[in-house]
Amino acid sequence: MSLVLAVNAGSSSLKISLFRRSADNAANPALLLSSSTSSIFAPPARFKLNFVALQHRSLSEEVDSIYDHESAFKHFLYRLKEEASVDTIDIKHIAHRVVHGGDYISPVMIFEESYHHIKKLSDLAPLHNGSALSVISSAIKALPHAKSIAFFDSAFHKDLPTHVATYAINQQVAHEKGLKKYGFHGLSYAFILRAVAAHLNKAPDTLNIIALHIGSGASMCAIRNGQSIDTSMGLTPLSGLPGATRAGDIDASLIFHYTSRSPAHMSHDPSISKEVKVTEAEDILNFKSGWKALTGTADFKEITEKADTSVLSDPISRTADPNTLAFRIMLDRILHFAGAYHLALHGNVDALVFAGGVGERSAELRRAVGEAVACLGFAVIDETKNSQVNDDEGIIVDIGKGDERKRMLVCHTDEQLEMAIECSLANEFWV
Amino acid sequence: MSLVLAVNAGSSSLKISLFRRSADNAANPALLLSSSTSSIFAPPARFKLNFVALQHRSLSEEVDSIYDHESAFKHFLYRLKEEASVDTIDIKHIAHRVVHGGDYISPVMIFEESYHHIKKLSDLAPLHNGSALSVISSAIKALPHAKSIAFFDSAFHKDLPTHVATYAINQQVAHEKGLKKYGFHGLSYAFILRAVAAHLNKAPDTLNIIALHIGSGASMCAIRNGQSIDTSMGLTPLSGLPGATRAGDIDASLIFHYTSRSPAHMSHDPSISKEVKVTEAEDILNFKSGWKALTGTADFKEITEKADTSVLSDPISRTADPNTLAFRIMLDRILHFAGAYHLALHGNVDALVFAGGVGERSAELRRAVGEAVACLGFAVIDETKNSQVNDDEGIIVDIGKGDERKRMLVCHTDEQLEMAIECSLANEFWV
Repeated sequence: MSLVLAVNAGSSSLKISLFRRSADNAANPALLLSSSTSSIFAPPARFKLNFVALQHRSLSEEVDSIYDHESAFKHFLYRLKEEASVDTIDIKHIAHRVVHGGDYISPVMIFEESYHHIKKLSDLAPLHNGSALSVISSAIKALPHAKSIAFFDSAFHKDLPTHVATYAINQQVAHEKGLKKYGFHGLSYAFILRAVAAHLNKAPDTLNIIALHIGSGASMCAIRNGQSIDTSMGLTPLSGLPGATRAGDIDASLIFHYTSRSPAHMSHDPSISKEVKVTEAEDILNFKSGWKALTGTADFKEITEKADTSVLSDPISRTADPNTLAFRIMLDRILHFAGAYHLALHGNVDALVFAGGVGERSAELRRAVGEAVACLGFAVIDETKNSQVNDDEGIIVDIGKGDERKRMLVCHTDEQLEMAIECSLANEFWV
Repeated sequence: MSLVLAVNAGSSSLKISLFRRSADNAANPALLLSSSTSSIFAPPARFKLNFVALQHRSLSEEVDSIYDHESAFKHFLYRLKEEASVDTIDIKHIAHRVVHGGDYISPVMIFEESYHHIKKLSDLAPLHNGSALSVISSAIKALPHAKSIAFFDSAFHKDLPTHVATYAINQQVAHEKGLKKYGFHGLSYAFILRAVAAHLNKAPDTLNIIALHIGSGASMCAIRNGQSIDTSMGLTPLSGLPGATRAGDIDASLIFHYTSRSPAHMSHDPSISKEVKVTEAEDILNFKSGWKALTGTADFKEITEKADTSVLSDPISRTADPNTLAFRIMLDRILHFAGAYHLALHGNVDALVFAGGVGERSAELRRAVGEAVACLGFAVIDETKNSQVNDDEGIIVDIGKGDERKRMLVCHTDEQLEMAIECSLANEFWV
């Protein structure tokens, strides 16, 4: 039996799915079970296991012994043996989602050299690759017979046009230090592309899509003929859209003013100019900003419920309500990229696709986006379909009225399944 | 006689125009003469004076005694007396362009208090307000009888919707330190709005415009019903479009990686993390980036001549030629905002307007933008009109074929004239 474990380590979560691969149907690995561990650094962690192959029998527990990604991974393996009677010797491949691939543009088998290369990359994305690296170490120790393979979230954007990926800075420094737009959420975008192609019965390399992956991390991507031609994140996941705790695009000068010690009298006199630590600045902009900083909660659903969405049609709202403001800021930034990517695709767009935790669950956000983009020729949203997205079993739900050429879709994206498919299809990993 | 002096201090230039105001035609101050001083910090400075009222007699000279804005202003006054026989006692008002107005949303008469307030604002825009402040001091000393009035480039954007002006950061810090989107080039946008309204014979408050002020500093503005509803610059002029030496939008993490001292092995270990000085970072991003960093020249015309514009229709160019790359980067970023602002205006756009040194002079850039935005319903550019813009005497030149609703215009913008008009019309300054 050939099993593939797909591991997705977030900053404080760990999602793992187990698939069975059959050589004669490699494009469709079968999901056996899925698990998630949340609140890893806010104990007790919550562990869930769902046995898809066993009539969706499930298990949910608080686990005191989980305090980091390594202990979370160990707990998963323990439950795998206890509850699912899976012999770990059958796990031939472990696919790990790694955020920043730097110059890696396709999945790599992890040996000592590639491990250290990824570790060095984590200097570009210190807040993002660390958890994956710690699970990779644990996996190699715990399952030494299995091949560990890194799948990079930046790889989908490998073909960004040079003029899109290049920042207007000194290019010698840029080349030396790898300073360019990489883009992220690539596994999700690859899944979205695959799923929309199947849904519309078109070849992926003929598809033009504006894809929105909106979760606690949020980004957008313009896909032309199946290739990413622009995306909102950049050198790191910081730029572009705001997220739950991430500022998104700001004026680059802002951080220096934000952190200067004396608010009443800032100065740029070089002799007394303030210094800002890399770690402090990146910490503020990645973890202490975003809609949580605006409202006090990272739960977008709660924000939406409290927000006054009746004012959305008022272009010049002066609302002081933080929830309404947070909702409108997200909407404004999403529409900014939607308009930009619509033009980047010369108006030839097959579909605008919502995905990610918020994208898949917030009917309100989809409605607001839909009302705004309808003037570009996108299908008007059918509110019945829009409100029933979560009840729909399909991977793709069409929420538009009628069959306009520019469709409005929701995609239940699945990064673990994408890795399992890519892993299963890559013959070089199965020789 | 009531004369108004309009003073526009750039980082290394000083433009001054002299107008005569008549109370019975206050909306049309008459230009008497204009002057410009360039290369102020790279002596010898070049001083030019053009006597509009005297059959455009002109004077051009290198001046060794100019080494800063104050000496440049003194030289102007000297020539004014020598060559133009203007009695400075007739100068009743001096209008100064100040980049960053902070919470000032309309012109202010400069007394000690307002002077110090503007000086404090210059902490938000240390690289931008300084030259204006030094000319203001000189003017008060040299012409103590005249009223000095500051006109702010940020004021045009005073009505930005809250959700557009707000960054997704801690709002307590934001309010304390004034960290929000201000926007700049407002005198130019006010002039463009005024001129387009006159040209189209429509009331300014019914006009929807996508305005491009593209010079060595470059920005764009979405104007709805005569009000700025979004603009590409932010807290400072750094964000948005790249400029001659300015990076424009980058990932906010970039600067920390850019300036870390050891390229071969960066680290985010807090104990050895690098610190970045405000002044150093802002200096790199404002003065050592942009198209000059990409190509070696700040002259966009030279870049355009060397660039291979035949590849523009190739969406995925991999060009290594720095001039082609710089041209495409500018085009890409302009189109990004054009698409975004077109949607922000719900597709109801009266005109896309090119202005600024590059916007008014680069037929190639206008052609490339025009080809891309035609799919949104903008008039196709008439190449004969487009190539003859500089020969046209009008303030507005329509470069579109036919009379499509969405026009393509060029505006010879004039920040000094805008100040003179606003100053002349403001009754409170003439009591």
